[in-house]
Amino acid sequence: MAVPAPAVKSLERTGHRLLEQARLRVQPQLRERVEGRLTHNRAGAGYHLGWLDGHGRPAKAWTGKAVRPALCFAAAEAAGGCAGEALPEAVAVQLVHDFSVTHDDLIDEDRMRRHRPALWAALGMPTAVLCGDALLSLAFTALTDAGRGGRALARLAEAPVEMIEGEALDVAFERRERVRPGEYTAMAAAKTGALMGCACALGTVAAGGDERRARLMAAFGRHLGVAFQITDDLLGICGRQEVTGKPVGGDIAVRKKTLPILIALASATAEGEELAGLYAHRGELSPEQVARAAHLVGQAGGVRAARQERDRELKLAHAALAETAPAPAGRRNLLALAHLLTHRNS
Amino acid sequence: MAVPAPAVKSLERTGHRLLEQARLRVQPQLRERVEGRLTHNRAGAGYHLGWLDGHGRPAKAWTGKAVRPALCFAAAEAAGGCAGEALPEAVAVQLVHDFSVTHDDLIDEDRMRRHRPALWAALGMPTAVLCGDALLSLAFTALTDAGRGGRALARLAEAPVEMIEGEALDVAFERRERVRPGEYTAMAAAKTGALMGCACALGTVAAGGDERRARLMAAFGRHLGVAFQITDDLLGICGRQEVTGKPVGGDIAVRKKTLPILIALASATAEGEELAGLYAHRGELSPEQVARAAHLVGQAGGVRAARQERDRELKLAHAALAETAPAPAGRRNLLALAHLLTHRNS
Repeated sequence: MAVPAPAVKSLERTGHRLLEQARLRVQPQLRERVEGRLTHNRAGAGYHLGWLDGHGRPAKAWTGKAVRPALCFAAAEAAGGCAGEALPEAVAVQLVHDFSVTHDDLIDEDRMRRHRPALWAALGMPTAVLCGDALLSLAFTALTDAGRGGRALARLAEAPVEMIEGEALDVAFERRERVRPGEYTAMAAAKTGALMGCACALGTVAAGGDERRARLMAAFGRHLGVAFQITDDLLGICGRQEVTGKPVGGDIAVRKKTLPILIALASATAEGEELAGLYAHRGELSPEQVARAAHLVGQAGGVRAARQERDRELKLAHAALAETAPAPAGRRNLLALAHLLTHRNS
Repeated sequence: MAVPAPAVKSLERTGHRLLEQARLRVQPQLRERVEGRLTHNRAGAGYHLGWLDGHGRPAKAWTGKAVRPALCFAAAEAAGGCAGEALPEAVAVQLVHDFSVTHDDLIDEDRMRRHRPALWAALGMPTAVLCGDALLSLAFTALTDAGRGGRALARLAEAPVEMIEGEALDVAFERRERVRPGEYTAMAAAKTGALMGCACALGTVAAGGDERRARLMAAFGRHLGVAFQITDDLLGICGRQEVTGKPVGGDIAVRKKTLPILIALASATAEGEELAGLYAHRGELSPEQVARAAHLVGQAGGVRAARQERDRELKLAHAALAETAPAPAGRRNLLALAHLLTHRNS
């Protein structure tokens, strides 16, 4: 997006401030909910959420980025309400996100999460399965305890169904020889877009927004989610470990088929061919091969085309938002979050 | 329970008829819901639910017993409504049950379920995790699609939280040297009782029953659930494989600490000592050792005492039901189900 540099800085500052505010708002609620309801899954959930270490001792506080709560709050403001009205919704979407993270890490054998060993790697498969289940269930109680009705609960219930479908498709992609870039964005819309859309729709509903607004805000969040996922994919190739907390070229080392890689593989270039050869290689790739593969993705145009696709999704998000005629403060906050989430380095 | 033999036969016939009716009512809904909402998890869910084989080809229809739907329908009748009013609720509780089964089998490494390999054993861990997640999420959409409000959804959301806590406690028991029989029944109340209680409460709510009635019906279902679990434990020691679909003494072979076993271990008898020795034995138990252990559980009084505990829970269930002054047809059906579920051979 062509935004002048000073405006970019201001957007970034606003985005960071909103994430920090969301974190501060949601964290005590999250902890109270988890510790108030869970006994036998408390150590596992507390480890995943960051306030316990692997031995059940206090660790530093929650390490989540609070992306979805921040969207939820800003959506409530955009609908003319105030952020606080959407607190149960913000807690619920964060819990659904943490549910999906614990299960997806296990399924994908991703060993690192938020700069620490993933829950399954630290405390085992049974703990990861049960804690994920508990977090999902607690998301629903976050809404029912707040007296929310069928409309909000219906929105919350749809998101995980779609996310799980997206994850299953992602798993299937890893086994398939060819995946078209378009199939990939459909997967990302389900796996990542559904919950961001849900966060925006629930914030809207909490502030009394009507169904048309909720639908448009769901579309905003969904497109933003795809752009966010592509940003993640770009970081999985070009990100620096000390910032992301994940190994450089980590997606390549485990032969993930993310968008830049799929575009490079489909590019009909010499670099794409060489990349396909590396991907067909059995056994572990050496650090040199991983670095070479990352270089090839760029040379074959995968990075540039993925950036274009990210920008296209971001534009669609902006268009959906504009249609809702959002309240100014909410609009500014949503645009700041959208910018930050798609132009980040971690 | 001292019930004359002809009355027992009649209760059993009624119970079987109710389960069969519940199966016929719920099965098409279950299938429509799963196939209408799932694409990438359809094969896994269809395998677990019985209408597909491990290669995605049609198999015989759903093989579940429909225990929780039958309770839900009968509870609606006991509240003065008709069974059909509680159809979305019956589907929802069956889905929550199937969610817990797919995850618990994985966690407990139980390889057989309903006379076939368990989902994780047939199609792998990722499929079992995702399909379980999907079934849980679909349970909520079963209620929201039917336009149900916060009251029903709150009841539905509480059940999995408690079930997951119960399963985590069960897992912890397997690692502990000593578990008191009282701790065990508390675990069973969470793991098994919570959902049966939820089924009865949701049936009550669907038929317009008030909160007092819903609470009492939840207590009825919860006590019945504990009695049902103890019956399961007894079958895990004395059940015949051709009827249960699980290996004889299967619970012993994997050193499960079920109620009859815990009572035998705590019995301070020579047989209890010998059993403790077998349980402390590292490595796999031979079929002879498993048979010997099963014999010792009986000799140490574990089977008899567990039966008494089952009957005590069943009495508490009856007492809760009586307090609701149930409509006669509903009452008869609930008593028939309660009898069948606690005096079964599979």
